Parts: sequence; C-alpha cells; structure tokens
Amino acid sequence: MKISEVGEFGLIEIIKNMANRKLVGGIGDDCAVIDIAKEKELLVTTDTLVEGVHFLKDTDAYKLGRKSLAVSVSDVAAMAALPRWAFLSISLRDMELGYVKAFMEGFYSLADEFGIDLLGGDTTKSSVFSVTVTLIGVDDKGKSVKRGGAKVKDNVYVTGKIGCSYAGFEAVIKKIDGYEECKERHNNPYPRLKEALSVKNYANAMIDVSDGLLQDCLHICELSGVAIEIDLDKIPFCDADFVDKEEMLSGGEDYELVFCAPKEYENALNDIDNITKIGEVKEGFGVSVIKNSKQLNIKRLGFKHF
Amino acid sequence: MKISEVGEFGLIEIIKNMANRKLVGGIGDDCAVIDIAKEKELLVTTDTLVEGVHFLKDTDAYKLGRKSLAVSVSDVAAMAALPRWAFLSISLRDMELGYVKAFMEGFYSLADEFGIDLLGGDTTKSSVFSVTVTLIGVDDKGKSVKRGGAKVKDNVYVTGKIGCSYAGFEAVIKKIDGYEECKERHNNPYPRLKEALSVKNYANAMIDVSDGLLQDCLHICELSGVAIEIDLDKIPFCDADFVDKEEMLSGGEDYELVFCAPKEYENALNDIDNITKIGEVKEGFGVSVIKNSKQLNIKRLGFKHF
Repeated sequence: MKISEVGEFGLIEIIKNMANRKLVGGIGDDCAVIDIAKEKELLVTTDTLVEGVHFLKDTDAYKLGRKSLAVSVSDVAAMAALPRWAFLSISLRDMELGYVKAFMEGFYSLADEFGIDLLGGDTTKSSVFSVTVTLIGVDDKGKSVKRGGAKVKDNVYVTGKIGCSYAGFEAVIKKIDGYEECKERHNNPYPRLKEALSVKNYANAMIDVSDGLLQDCLHICELSGVAIEIDLDKIPFCDADFVDKEEMLSGGEDYELVFCAPKEYENALNDIDNITKIGEVKEGFGVSVIKNSKQLNIKRLGFKHF
Repeated sequence: MKISEVGEFGLIEIIKNMANRKLVGGIGDDCAVIDIAKEKELLVTTDTLVEGVHFLKDTDAYKLGRKSLAVSVSDVAAMAALPRWAFLSISLRDMELGYVKAFMEGFYSLADEFGIDLLGGDTTKSSVFSVTVTLIGVDDKGKSVKRGGAKVKDNVYVTGKIGCSYAGFEAVIKKIDGYEECKERHNNPYPRLKEALSVKNYANAMIDVSDGLLQDCLHICELSGVAIEIDLDKIPFCDADFVDKEEMLSGGEDYELVFCAPKEYENALNDIDNITKIGEVKEGFGVSVIKNSKQLNIKRLGFKHF
C-alpha cells in the first residue's frame, strides 16, 4: 500500500497508534504542550515547506523566509501563547548564496516583529529546497487555548477573510494579473497573534485555518466532541470573483484563526477589530454549512496533503 | 556565488552574522541552551537526514528510524543532559506504507530506550525522502557541559572507537563483504548518553564526533580558546584494515564523544568503561596530531557537507 492511499491524516493516525509510550498532550493540537516548570508550559510546533509542494521554485526568497516562520507563529498564535525561540533546518540545492541571504533576511524580519530568537538549526544539501521550522512558545500553565474546549452554544468566530490565500495562489498559477492583495496573503501571510491575545480570555477553543476553514472547524469538533454550524452568508469571504466560494472554504493556507466563545462574551468580542461571528457550536458531530437556514451539500472538506 | 563556494560552516557564519537580535547562547554548541525556569535549562537540537545525501535509497528502514533520532540524542548526550521530547518532520515520496511503518518502529524503539516521547511533527510530500528531528532535553540550570569550557592541561578523552562508521560506510559503498560491526555502527549508531552522564561531573568541555574527530576537536578549540594535541598511537581506531587512519580521523558520523577533563580526575576516569585518553589541551589554537612526539601533517580536517 502506498502513502497516497492512506492520506496525511491516515498516516498520522498510524504513527500515533504505533507509539508504545503514552502520548503526553501531543499530536492533535496546533502545538504540543509540555509542562516544564511550576508555573509555565511550553508550546512546540514543527512545520515543513517543500519546494514544488508548498511553494514554487521561483518564489520570492524574502517572503518565503517570512512565511517559513509565519506558519509556525500561526500555530503558537492559535493557542494564544507567546512565540519565543525558533530552530531552522534548511535543505539546499547548490543555490545562489544571494537567494539564501534574502530568505534569511525575510526570516529574521518576521522573527524580529514577533520577538523570536533563532537559536539553532541545521543546514544540509539536498536535490530539493525545503525548510523545517520548529518554534517554541511559552504560556502560564494551563492558560493556552486548546482545540478541545468548545462548548455547545458557543459562538464561532473567524479573524480576517477566508479564501484570499487560495485566490492568490490560483491567480499566480493561472497567471492572472492583479489581485495583489490575495497574492500577498498567500506569499506573505501575517500570523494573527495580536487577535489571538485579544480574544484569549474569551475563547474556549481555537485553531488556525491552515487546511481550510471547514477542515479546521472539523478538527475542533473532533477534539471537543461537538458539531459546528456555519452560516455561509456570514463568512467574510475574499472578494476575488474568479474563485468559487466552496473552493475558498477548503483552499487552506488562510492562516486566520477560528475560535469558539460563550455567548456572554458577544458584546466584548464585538469591540475587537478584525473578527467576525460565523456560526454556532451545536450538539452532535461534524461541520455543516447553512444558507437561509438550509443545509448545503459541501463536497470537499479541505486541502489534501498527499 | 553558489552555496558550495562558501561551504556549510561559511553559510552558518553568514546566517549568524545576519541576525539583528543578540544570539542567546545558541548556534555553536551541540544544543541551544534555553533558560526556562528558576532551576532548569532546556537543551534543543535539530538534525536533518536527506536520502541520497546522508543515507542511501535502500537503507534499512528500521535502522534509519533509529538513526534519525540517535543523531539528535547524541547532541543532547554531548551536553550530558537528559533527552526528553522529540518532534519529527518527515517529507515522503509516495513510498510503501510498510517502509514508513518500519521506519517509525525503529524511531520508537530508540525513543523508548532513552525515555523520549514523540510529541508532534509534520508529514509532507516531497520528491526526496528526508527526516528532520528536533529533540528537547533538560538539565539543572548551568549543569550541561558546553564546548567552551576546556582548560589548558586538561586531558582529552574519547568514547568507543573512531572510524568504524566511516569504514562501515565505505564497505557498503564499495560492496565489501563482512565488517558487519562497522556497517552496524554506521547504520545504527548508539548514542553515548550513559558515558556522558558517567563523566559529567569531571568534564570541562564535551562534543559529539559527528564531523570527524579532528574537526570536532577544533570546535572545542574555537569555543574554548585553546589548542588540542592528540597522540595518534593512543586513538582507539577501528580495526578495519582497508581504510586509511587519516580518513578515519576526518570521516565523521562516529557519534562518539570527545571531552576534556582536569588531570586530577584521571584516576576516577580510569574506572569508567569505554573511554580512552588520547591527548591534552595546550595553550594556543588549533588541533595537532603527534606520533612519537613529532607533529604529523594532516591534510583534511573533516567531513564536508557541501
């Protein structure tokens, strides 16, 4: 049997089930949580970007450097924790040194913006350029926001807009002029740490939208044991007109946040910029999308990694 | 200018020098050191293995899984700390699921032997199979052994034998029968954590031999501001007869430990198994090799990564 037959999530299940040792609060959330001292917990996340899979060969090096770190910052933001220390492993073809320097300039620029120190890493030769970032964040013990805390009747919110990154990617691939903001959202996403910290005291559960809005809502459902109902008309879609909304729901790489918060905080959350209420947590299991109170039939849930 | 023109260590220098923020105890030791709580420090290391660069395409999957983690455990051992939490990022061709399962069995087997939990990671598609492991260890604050602590007149010791891994690699490449122990040392190295903890209270400086004995001694010299003189006849070389000793000195991937310890501990260290005194720390800078008190001319220092 080939890996493509089991898919990414199937493979992860197999890897998890093979562990002899108990998995301690790991694999499942955006970050692993490590109890490290009396009052602190560590949040750790690892992300790999591969040339030809996650980015095109001629991608702007500076923006790619930023994005390589941004996707991990987004994971730490999804738990409303502070990103602190990064480790960078780069596998390089015999590329131009100038490209690697521009990549590092981008990496350091985002690191500086978020107060992150690059503490180590590895550089290796390969026939494919790829980047793996491990990012460690910190929080007070028990204070980081998990995927598994959503409660029935919570409101469901999203930051920013959904689908811009996917539209930007499509515009690049199909060589469509314009849509610069979408292309920028795809090539240079900005992690929603500020928003995460603003809603931290209200959110029962949170996740970043990396696999697609519906897929990531499903991850909350799985870990919280709930259903989520989203109102299509309330979703703040990207206004790019050449992409179907259903594709935007499953396109992935938005690096926005989805979170669930009790209704009693609705007024407080109304005062926070850049967030939109899109649905409600229900009893049951799974994600449904409604329009005019009728349930829609959504074919594709999220981005397929294999 | 191409990366191959600056080399791995040149590239790392460039990356370090580009940092705007002060590098806090990072890049330079086997692990980065993070002050995390009043009494604890974290040791973090990242290593990438790439198919066709660090291992052959038909390498035994189980042993490769063990080795992927072992090289990182060796880094934590080099600081005489306890390895605890691993993060595994695997980039996969559309391989047989059975190969990946055998790889994970190997990974978990070594993790279990060293009390390490796999807490997270990433799985991605690629045209090249590669593995990045980030390993976090812990120690009491200030207790881990660094590269920079060697003192003039310290004795220099090495664990195990030098050159077995290189001989094993050559035997595989040249299709030479026999030398199974060497092949095993190359494909399935066993980190010297036990030895590291045995010598922890005596060692002023320590490093693992991954780039080659001489190159890694030079790393100690660089960070300690000292010279190291090694007596060729005292080095416990691998007894494979088809490899030149000079090649064994620069072959790399021994995953033994080199450490420097004050002469007053010589008797205590004599009682510890599997370590050999090979030289002395001197004033000055750089690594020299002597035979019958005469300095040898060594052409190649260590394994070149690019």
